[in-house]
Amino acid sequence: MFKTIKTNIMDNIMTITLNRPDRLNAYTEFLGDEIIQALDHADENDEVRVLIMTGEGKAFCAGADLDKDASIFRSETSMEDYRDGGGLVSLRIFELNKPIIAAINGPAVGVGITMTLPMDIRIASENAKMGFVFARRGITQEACSGWFLPRIVGISQAMEWVSTGRVFSAQEAKEHGLVSRVVPADELLSTSRQLAAEIVENTSAVSVALNRQLMWRMLGADHPMESHKVESKYIYWTGRNADVQEGVEAFLEKRKPNFSLRVSSDMPDFYPWWEEREFK
Amino acid sequence: MFKTIKTNIMDNIMTITLNRPDRLNAYTEFLGDEIIQALDHADENDEVRVLIMTGEGKAFCAGADLDKDASIFRSETSMEDYRDGGGLVSLRIFELNKPIIAAINGPAVGVGITMTLPMDIRIASENAKMGFVFARRGITQEACSGWFLPRIVGISQAMEWVSTGRVFSAQEAKEHGLVSRVVPADELLSTSRQLAAEIVENTSAVSVALNRQLMWRMLGADHPMESHKVESKYIYWTGRNADVQEGVEAFLEKRKPNFSLRVSSDMPDFYPWWEEREFK
Amino acid sequence: MFKTIKTNIMDNIMTITLNRPDRLNAYTEFLGDEIIQALDHADENDEVRVLIMTGEGKAFCAGADLDKDASIFRSETSMEDYRDGGGLVSLRIFELNKPIIAAINGPAVGVGITMTLPMDIRIASENAKMGFVFARRGITQEACSGWFLPRIVGISQAMEWVSTGRVFSAQEAKEHGLVSRVVPADELLSTSRQLAAEIVENTSAVSVALNRQLMWRMLGADHPMESHKVESKYIYWTGRNADVQEGVEAFLEKRKPNFSLRVSSDMPDFYPWWEEREFK
Repeated sequence: MFKTIKTNIMDNIMTITLNRPDRLNAYTEFLGDEIIQALDHADENDEVRVLIMTGEGKAFCAGADLDKDASIFRSETSMEDYRDGGGLVSLRIFELNKPIIAAINGPAVGVGITMTLPMDIRIASENAKMGFVFARRGITQEACSGWFLPRIVGISQAMEWVSTGRVFSAQEAKEHGLVSRVVPADELLSTSRQLAAEIVENTSAVSVALNRQLMWRMLGADHPMESHKVESKYIYWTGRNADVQEGVEAFLEKRKPNFSLRVSSDMPDFYPWWEEREFK
Repeated sequence: MFKTIKTNIMDNIMTITLNRPDRLNAYTEFLGDEIIQALDHADENDEVRVLIMTGEGKAFCAGADLDKDASIFRSETSMEDYRDGGGLVSLRIFELNKPIIAAINGPAVGVGITMTLPMDIRIASENAKMGFVFARRGITQEACSGWFLPRIVGISQAMEWVSTGRVFSAQEAKEHGLVSRVVPADELLSTSRQLAAEIVENTSAVSVALNRQLMWRMLGADHPMESHKVESKYIYWTGRNADVQEGVEAFLEKRKPNFSLRVSSDMPDFYPWWEEREFK
Repeated sequence: MFKTIKTNIMDNIMTITLNRPDRLNAYTEFLGDEIIQALDHADENDEVRVLIMTGEGKAFCAGADLDKDASIFRSETSMEDYRDGGGLVSLRIFELNKPIIAAINGPAVGVGITMTLPMDIRIASENAKMGFVFARRGITQEACSGWFLPRIVGISQAMEWVSTGRVFSAQEAKEHGLVSRVVPADELLSTSRQLAAEIVENTSAVSVALNRQLMWRMLGADHPMESHKVESKYIYWTGRNADVQEGVEAFLEKRKPNFSLRVSSDMPDFYPWWEEREFK
């Protein structure tokens, strides 16, 4: 079904594998489109509770697939209509109803690292290295990284990495909070799947979806009252639903819960509570 | 005076102790109301310079007081009028004119940890553990934690803790900035009181109040010019007042200052400079 | 040309040295004006790619130059017209088109530390110490630190430092992300210059300028779509310019790039894309 990625669903976890290993999984517009399609499927399919993205072969993603003419950056369209492809991927991830983990198995450079910024958790192999190399190529940062990166690693570290364009180690990434863990290469997928399983086995899919959108959206809100308004609706609604009965019973009976609400059909009618932002 | 909390004022420090030890200080609507009343008193009383909140017995606060029917989440009111109780506590803390320290002596779970997020400093005992367990109970996060948590620990760690619902150690909390210190259980209160005393003995109450509101409010501002406007008024006003004379003299004479301005009566007439946000 | 600072341009790096060593480089309105002038020159001069600010002698900057009357805080003007001088410096730094590194060689107290907050990178000597001492002097924090400080070190650490007014070590500063490195005193300038050289030698000046303003401005934006809109224009424009040709060629040929675009004359016509915020 896909040409530049592979997808696999097992134990309620969808793994998306970037699959152009001969090009170090370099980003093309086609690859970006396929990622977006896979994310659409993940959101529609209740079997999928958590996503993992990783790369086939030695690299996670070596950045934009460059030829000598840098033609990938020259669209036929007008400046008004042009949309950065990495940004489209990032915005789609931002809107996901399910958590997504980046399992960074090797070099993640340029768009290869910026498109992971809207993901919820980043875990790196010891072999991984990262670089916001844009200023070394004469272009600028993208994939909404102007918004995401300073919120994840702080403006000072963001400025150092983006201004030098330096390629740095997984360890340096961890020291500054760009990834949460660095693990041996052969433990990367198992660690990621274990973390995903912790979500699958213990939580309500609808609760997780509501919380995910709450926190990402509240990053842009100017007052905690905005959070209070939304949370009051959430609590009111979840407090009368089947999942809270099961969750509280399971807790009191010290057993794993077995939640029944589905993201595809059972989200509350006040969701989404925001109006989606338009381009222009 | 209070039934579910205890309050004590000593050395200009008000200690609020959650006091339902037989229920692990579990949260009830009544408890929330009593906390808000105590905070109101603290703000009105110039003797109180700093607050500490802790828990009686083994726990800090085990979260919402659950019965098998999860009835605590089912209000009689309509969804439009319903307000999350933890959020009311958080918003009251947000508006405090005095710093507040959470001395987390044991488990702090659900609302037990989210209501500490608007507090200025969190110190934990080695015995403490925390959990944003909402998705395991089939409900959603609250107490304005959608706004506060990603601003305190970063969106990635916030998403990991909230999506897994995992209960984690004080040490893990410290690694990710949720608490600033972890100390042996028998040093928790003395460490907290020492930190509070450092504020009491060295600073102007009015300066501290103005700075507290400045920084919390500026978390929601979209440009440093908003800070500059307010700070210019602050500096102009404090620069002509009694406390600056005393502060500079004490500094030049290398002695402790003895400030005279009071929060109850001496705040500038441009304070508050904001319009309080309404629900709805 | 300057009386209270020295400037020097070498290897495309402008070093601004606060130069009132007999007063521990204490801040005066005159000093603030000279800093702003130097920053204006730096932005106009294409020879300058990166700035470093440091202090002559033992201190970086001991804060406002206090006399017994604290007269520095009492302007003749009205409250409506009064503008905090440190804030004017901070706002000028915020608008810079070039990265600036604070090389904190000794005590940086009050405005001495707050004016470094809009700088991109802070490196400290082992001899440095910092303090947000305002509440100990009976005044309030300034230089837009209400906006910058919680975004750099988090609201909890910001509240602890500002509420206690404590003077703390370079090491404590590093633990909480206020500085990124602590180095021996005699390595401070060489480390700073090495970092600056990494930017000079590898990156496009125009790319660095565009990225700098993107990230600082996006700190105040409420949705990643705002980033996507700007970045789409950036990528479209840079993708058709000389620097990308050189950057990609140099990369493919594994050599240092030699970029030609200049900040003084070659910025795109959609830059700045924002309307500058006015006072009042």
